[in-house]
Amino acid sequence: MQGTPQPRATAASNQPGARAKAAGEDIWKNRTDKINAELFTLTYGSLVAQLVKDYEDYAEVNTQLDKMGYNIGTRLIEDFIAKSGLTKCGSFVETADVISKIGFKMYLGITPTITNISQDQKEFSLILEDNPLAEFVELPEDAVRDGLWYSNVLCGVLRGALEMVLLQVECNFVADVLRGDEVTEIRVRLVKVLDEEVPAADE
Amino acid sequence: MQGTPQPRATAASNQPGARAKAAGEDIWKNRTDKINAELFTLTYGSLVAQLVKDYEDYAEVNTQLDKMGYNIGTRLIEDFIAKSGLTKCGSFVETADVISKIGFKMYLGITPTITNISQDQKEFSLILEDNPLAEFVELPEDAVRDGLWYSNVLCGVLRGALEMVLLQVECNFVADVLRGDEVTEIRVRLVKVLDEEVPAADE
Repeated sequence: MQGTPQPRATAASNQPGARAKAAGEDIWKNRTDKINAELFTLTYGSLVAQLVKDYEDYAEVNTQLDKMGYNIGTRLIEDFIAKSGLTKCGSFVETADVISKIGFKMYLGITPTITNISQDQKEFSLILEDNPLAEFVELPEDAVRDGLWYSNVLCGVLRGALEMVLLQVECNFVADVLRGDEVTEIRVRLVKVLDEEVPAADE
Repeated sequence: MQGTPQPRATAASNQPGARAKAAGEDIWKNRTDKINAELFTLTYGSLVAQLVKDYEDYAEVNTQLDKMGYNIGTRLIEDFIAKSGLTKCGSFVETADVISKIGFKMYLGITPTITNISQDQKEFSLILEDNPLAEFVELPEDAVRDGLWYSNVLCGVLRGALEMVLLQVECNFVADVLRGDEVTEIRVRLVKVLDEEVPAADE
């Protein structure tokens, strides 16, 4: 992770994508307690349904999911660092690689494709070929029309986790197959590398 | 599952506990899509926190968690039957064995101990030595005092899933280490075996 305070850098953090992929596979297989994906999908579905019922406004549901994700991310990052041994990325593009091949692999068992890296290398997209959160989900028409991003918790998780390693990012969905788009795409933009005084974790 | 309409009974369903355990292990290892348990724990925590915020009443939170679980259970059971190949249990005690060694194993990766089987064999307890839903969770004092059963979704799941195989049960937590109890214990009581006309799944 770029800008993180720990001085130690493991071998893997200085290696190209193939190594990150192997490390992600190893952690996923051997160092991760797991539960059934379908139970998770249905539980997440209950959460979204509850928020829709509570707020009756899809934009607000997006905001709440992002906030919940942020709080989850600030806690998951410790587990991530402990299991991956990673502490520092050389660049934001390398961070993208670690997010996809280690982060997503460790927590969701998937490896999104990294695309559309901006010229200044401060933005990239993650294309989720599979999305365990949304398996078997169908959105009602008004949710599509009024802009619900069903899996928005993921953006919050990324934002929260990256902030704890001093990377302030903006993160949002720009496409979702649930809404009839061809792909499911999360856009991540580096806002700035933070100073070492980390802000409070909760929002 | 006792009383289920499907005529087919697999070999495993007629075997003692050890076979059920082996079947559960096999399904868990080879036929289950998985995600990281910590992500699930934190997501479930967000759900409970949201309900506490919404209802401001722990008894009502218990009810809502049970309802959500019921809806999840009515959907999980199809997946359970498809993956386990099980269709019929010879007795409610055998059902208990299948719930623990195949059901809990498949979905949460744990195998609760079955205890306190009633003399009429219509009630049993499941002791959860580990509880992935509650890992790292600490309840505030008022939640303990006012009777929050943090993992109550599990009772709903059991109730919903069993109803779909025509077993009407009552199911509730009677102890939880989160509340300072020595064990985490779910009590399951068979109310009756239903006719084949299954009631509507949603409540």
